Amino acid sequence: MNPVLSAPPKNGQAPPDLYSPIAWDLEQVEDVLARTLESRYSRVAAVVNHVSNYRGKRLRPALLLLVARACGRLTHEHHVLGAVVEMIHTATLVHDDVLDSATVRRHVPTVNAKWDNQTSVLLGDYLFTHAFHLSATLGDARACKIIGEATNRVCEGELCQGLEQGNLGLGEENYFDMIDGKTAELIACCCRLGALFSGANEGVVESLTTYGRQLGLAFQIADDLLDLEGDENATGKSLGTDLDQLKLTLPLIHLLDQSTEAGKLRLRQLMASSGNHKREKLIPHLVESGSLDYARRRAEDCAGQALAELNCLPPSPCRSLLEVLTRRVVDRNS
Amino acid sequence: MNPVLSAPPKNGQAPPDLYSPIAWDLEQVEDVLARTLESRYSRVAAVVNHVSNYRGKRLRPALLLLVARACGRLTHEHHVLGAVVEMIHTATLVHDDVLDSATVRRHVPTVNAKWDNQTSVLLGDYLFTHAFHLSATLGDARACKIIGEATNRVCEGELCQGLEQGNLGLGEENYFDMIDGKTAELIACCCRLGALFSGANEGVVESLTTYGRQLGLAFQIADDLLDLEGDENATGKSLGTDLDQLKLTLPLIHLLDQSTEAGKLRLRQLMASSGNHKREKLIPHLVESGSLDYARRRAEDCAGQALAELNCLPPSPCRSLLEVLTRRVVDRNS
Repeated sequence: MNPVLSAPPKNGQAPPDLYSPIAWDLEQVEDVLARTLESRYSRVAAVVNHVSNYRGKRLRPALLLLVARACGRLTHEHHVLGAVVEMIHTATLVHDDVLDSATVRRHVPTVNAKWDNQTSVLLGDYLFTHAFHLSATLGDARACKIIGEATNRVCEGELCQGLEQGNLGLGEENYFDMIDGKTAELIACCCRLGALFSGANEGVVESLTTYGRQLGLAFQIADDLLDLEGDENATGKSLGTDLDQLKLTLPLIHLLDQSTEAGKLRLRQLMASSGNHKREKLIPHLVESGSLDYARRRAEDCAGQALAELNCLPPSPCRSLLEVLTRRVVDRNS
Repeated sequence: MNPVLSAPPKNGQAPPDLYSPIAWDLEQVEDVLARTLESRYSRVAAVVNHVSNYRGKRLRPALLLLVARACGRLTHEHHVLGAVVEMIHTATLVHDDVLDSATVRRHVPTVNAKWDNQTSVLLGDYLFTHAFHLSATLGDARACKIIGEATNRVCEGELCQGLEQGNLGLGEENYFDMIDGKTAELIACCCRLGALFSGANEGVVESLTTYGRQLGLAFQIADDLLDLEGDENATGKSLGTDLDQLKLTLPLIHLLDQSTEAGKLRLRQLMASSGNHKREKLIPHLVESGSLDYARRRAEDCAGQALAELNCLPPSPCRSLLEVLTRRVVDRNS
């Protein structure tokens, strides 16, 4: 079974399995994934199999399936599309790990650590092209177009973030624009596909696309907060990487905005220094200035806007699960 | 204007411009390319603009257009598809340059040299996704499927080549299988798309796909020969890279096949040594064993098989140009 989007346990109780109504469908997604990525070359198959260890929250296919059910109709097309979006997400992770020189992803060695950068770059390409081909097998050019549009923005957002790396003057507006591209766009795409292929009307499709976008923004802000104040054991990956790579995220942008010119200079020097423990040194400043709280509030605002869009749906168990999932995106430890 | 696929000048005469009947169409392809890759982010636009310097032979769109004309019908869909295949080809070049740590491509600095590996990886992704999205804008899922199938094989071939790097026991069959994937598949795809979207019948589409595949094999063998015996000034790129990266190509596989066990050992030691001038040291062995001639003959055989497939077409100026182009692929210096 797929792990649920984990929330900190409350009152000693395990959280309910968010994905239980779509457990069978998620298994179908896994089947499509495995069949699509098969290779007759044993060395290629070994690398592809390794990546199946990256199995994470399966947030994107789960959202696509939950939205389809909440719209009242889930078909095999949704299983195929679920596999497509997961492959695209995995492709971006594999390439991110090269760019970040990351050695661990979801508690296992990254492809670049176990093989090399060359293998990672080509594996990411392999995942991208197989995702596009798989979407084309549905014989509906709308799916290809929607997925193409979303991945265009994802790549533009990632490229932009890379080129802005080290720009310690980045503003809040640029930050939102970038995370909208690199994260929210694909999540919005999942919700759009889930609704569209269930036959929902245009208004519902648009509302659920906006739901996905706001949820994606909330998710990324929460992720950026975890990079600053999270626990490496819980997240299963290296933290503090944004700082190490001089990528400004919302709490840091807020902190810089609140600082005097002299304070800004000191903070920028601290961030640009080559030393370790930048995270530990910055936390007191981030707490004192209220920057962590500010970012958390912005994430909650986005989640709130996402929740409001769900009103386009009739009440149902899957709509309720989308609501729980949306709240949990902000309040998580991994 | 696009440079022609250059042949060594004979009798002091410049070769005729192979692409003249499709000169206007190639300009339309350039227009589609430029419009598709536009970005509102100036930093992204700068990287994309730099890649337009990579403008090479435009072999793939030219083939697609010549095939369409030879089949009797060329529409704007062909311009769009020409841009799609060129973008996919460019994406693979950009990623290849990262993997090869290449510093020069077509006489200009590579993206990894001018920016960094991160930018190159993300730019390659950007080119891939924009190509897929562009193909989806035609609203015909057949195009997406054919392009998806081809890119799947291209990436599998590249991944396989990377994972076989350093395998000095690679056989001729594996070599042909790999170049079929990494090079011939996309060229076959160009010819298939050219024919299919001109409304040619199934038999003609299949023959022209085979034409493209054999042409692609000939092209890659010729390219591998250039890497061993070419002139860096003429090709505009670093040569001897296959040797440096321990990638076995046809002449080397043939040479090893012809050698005694003791000879094989010496050759493998020479190839695996860290020294420079491996190319110069190997050439006498390759000449003596007839391995360069053997590879050239195999390339000519493939070109011959390609030419035979063109008999499915009625005589026309564009069919004649395809014939000239096919012969020139083997007999070129860049």
